[in-house]
Amino acid sequence: MPDDILIEKIFNNDKRAVSRAISIIESGNSNSTELLKDLHKKIGGAYRIGITGPPGAGKSTLTNQLTKYYRSLNKKVGIIAVDPTSPFTGGALLGDRVRMSEIGSDPGVFIRSMATRGSLGGLSKKTIDAADVLDAAGYDFIIFETVGVGQSELDVAKAADTTVVVLVPESGDSIQAMKAGLMEIADFFVLNKSDRPGSESAMVALKTILMLRDHTEKSWMPNILKSVASENTGTKEIADEIEKHRDYLQKSGLLKLKRESNYKIRIKEIVEHLLKNELWAKERAESLEASLSQVVEGETSPYQIAEKLFNNFKSSVNQ
Amino acid sequence: MPDDILIEKIFNNDKRAVSRAISIIESGNSNSTELLKDLHKKIGGAYRIGITGPPGAGKSTLTNQLTKYYRSLNKKVGIIAVDPTSPFTGGALLGDRVRMSEIGSDPGVFIRSMATRGSLGGLSKKTIDAADVLDAAGYDFIIFETVGVGQSELDVAKAADTTVVVLVPESGDSIQAMKAGLMEIADFFVLNKSDRPGSESAMVALKTILMLRDHTEKSWMPNILKSVASENTGTKEIADEIEKHRDYLQKSGLLKLKRESNYKIRIKEIVEHLLKNELWAKERAESLEASLSQVVEGETSPYQIAEKLFNNFKSSVNQ
Repeated sequence: MPDDILIEKIFNNDKRAVSRAISIIESGNSNSTELLKDLHKKIGGAYRIGITGPPGAGKSTLTNQLTKYYRSLNKKVGIIAVDPTSPFTGGALLGDRVRMSEIGSDPGVFIRSMATRGSLGGLSKKTIDAADVLDAAGYDFIIFETVGVGQSELDVAKAADTTVVVLVPESGDSIQAMKAGLMEIADFFVLNKSDRPGSESAMVALKTILMLRDHTEKSWMPNILKSVASENTGTKEIADEIEKHRDYLQKSGLLKLKRESNYKIRIKEIVEHLLKNELWAKERAESLEASLSQVVEGETSPYQIAEKLFNNFKSSVNQ
Repeated sequence: MPDDILIEKIFNNDKRAVSRAISIIESGNSNSTELLKDLHKKIGGAYRIGITGPPGAGKSTLTNQLTKYYRSLNKKVGIIAVDPTSPFTGGALLGDRVRMSEIGSDPGVFIRSMATRGSLGGLSKKTIDAADVLDAAGYDFIIFETVGVGQSELDVAKAADTTVVVLVPESGDSIQAMKAGLMEIADFFVLNKSDRPGSESAMVALKTILMLRDHTEKSWMPNILKSVASENTGTKEIADEIEKHRDYLQKSGLLKLKRESNYKIRIKEIVEHLLKNELWAKERAESLEASLSQVVEGETSPYQIAEKLFNNFKSSVNQ
């Protein structure tokens, strides 16, 4: 369908059009840029929630419960699940099927899984672009569900307005989460599966680590909530905490600043992506390839080759 | 000291000069580029080993045992430990102290810890540059010890000639390792702490996953070795497997190809780094900053701003 019809359909939340638009974005062809430009004027209404944590913490179950809760308030929910799974596991597919049977048929819910298929490059960019489509389509909440392992996944989680880190009461879980950089990005924590043994000591460990966190200049103190997502315990409390954080961001003016800062990261990525495409055009890629043997033999250094390529690029541009 | 004296001292394996050179690299100033160019002609003699795996797998203990074994053969060993720990944990420091008391005083061993201090950017580049210093200083083996979480850490592990993935017999460990992308980079596996219960089923799980791995075009089948590093069990077998893999790489010609491919990644990074520095020069960074408010308000899209900046860069270059 022509682009203006596609865009009109997206604005009317036609699910097939939304799905098609995200596929265009995933393919990364030039149409996606034009599409995103056209959609941008309708963007900003959706509230973006990042749900992250280690594998097995119950992120999907919690996302589903939260979605059902929002639907009970008649809010529309878009879910983007990022799965860094290797191509041969099929983990993403399995999780999707369970999810689809629960909430997938609801017209007010849109679910999309974006797998990295081995390569992490450009994932966060495409994921956030996909969220823009859902935003323009009028979804009230967009949930990014990502496993908290790896820089790209953290980037996605950080791109949300409110980031929720889900942990389980297992020994060392909070330490690992901290090492993976999850502590710094959490607006609040959910200790899921809190009916398990070890829940109290996990709370203590988590509180201790939170106290070590640098709180200067911050008027928001991350809370720790308990839940048992599989029994739908704690869901309303989580939604309330998200609302509390949203309120805090709006009243303090931080929401606008946070979104500006996210756009800044994103614009930089887009420019660098454009530049790399031009940088590694055929002849320079070939020149690089041809130099590698000399570098291994010690005849010239990587830095000398890099400077040569850099200067070649500069002199080729703008001619 | 002047650069030529520093370089002379590095070639003579003066530990203080080596340490100083790595500090210059960490600081990232312009001297580091000149230094690395000068060192390059003496590079290529060291064999690079990556030791990676989840936190708590015993990577440090295993690195220490392997180092002691190589020392018994009168080989010099340089260790670069990459720790993605948050600034407030001090985990890297603690591990270092244990290590220093064991092998740190040996004149044939050099140990350096490189912490990411919150930001992962440029880590792999600096780590590999530091390895070049050790290579030029005449170390026979360079061990990269990195936690197998996050893209940068994987990049470091992949930059080695032989990559060893260390796991422990805990339920789901091999699944998580696979999800984190460790399966694809392993030249062989070490199941450490193999005296623990669950060791046999962990072996079965690991073998099953290995069978799923894509082995087309590969004549090297990753082995699974057992060890109890804390009791120095299995160390010689690991060293032998490394030697076997080295031999395979050399005889097949793959060592040169692997090193070429690593240099290619590295040169690209250097060029892109140079370009980004010029791209985000003061005036363009300011122009980006000034546009953010309009983007949040929906007046213009990130893609439009990105194109403007890209074109501005192209017209400013080569004038």
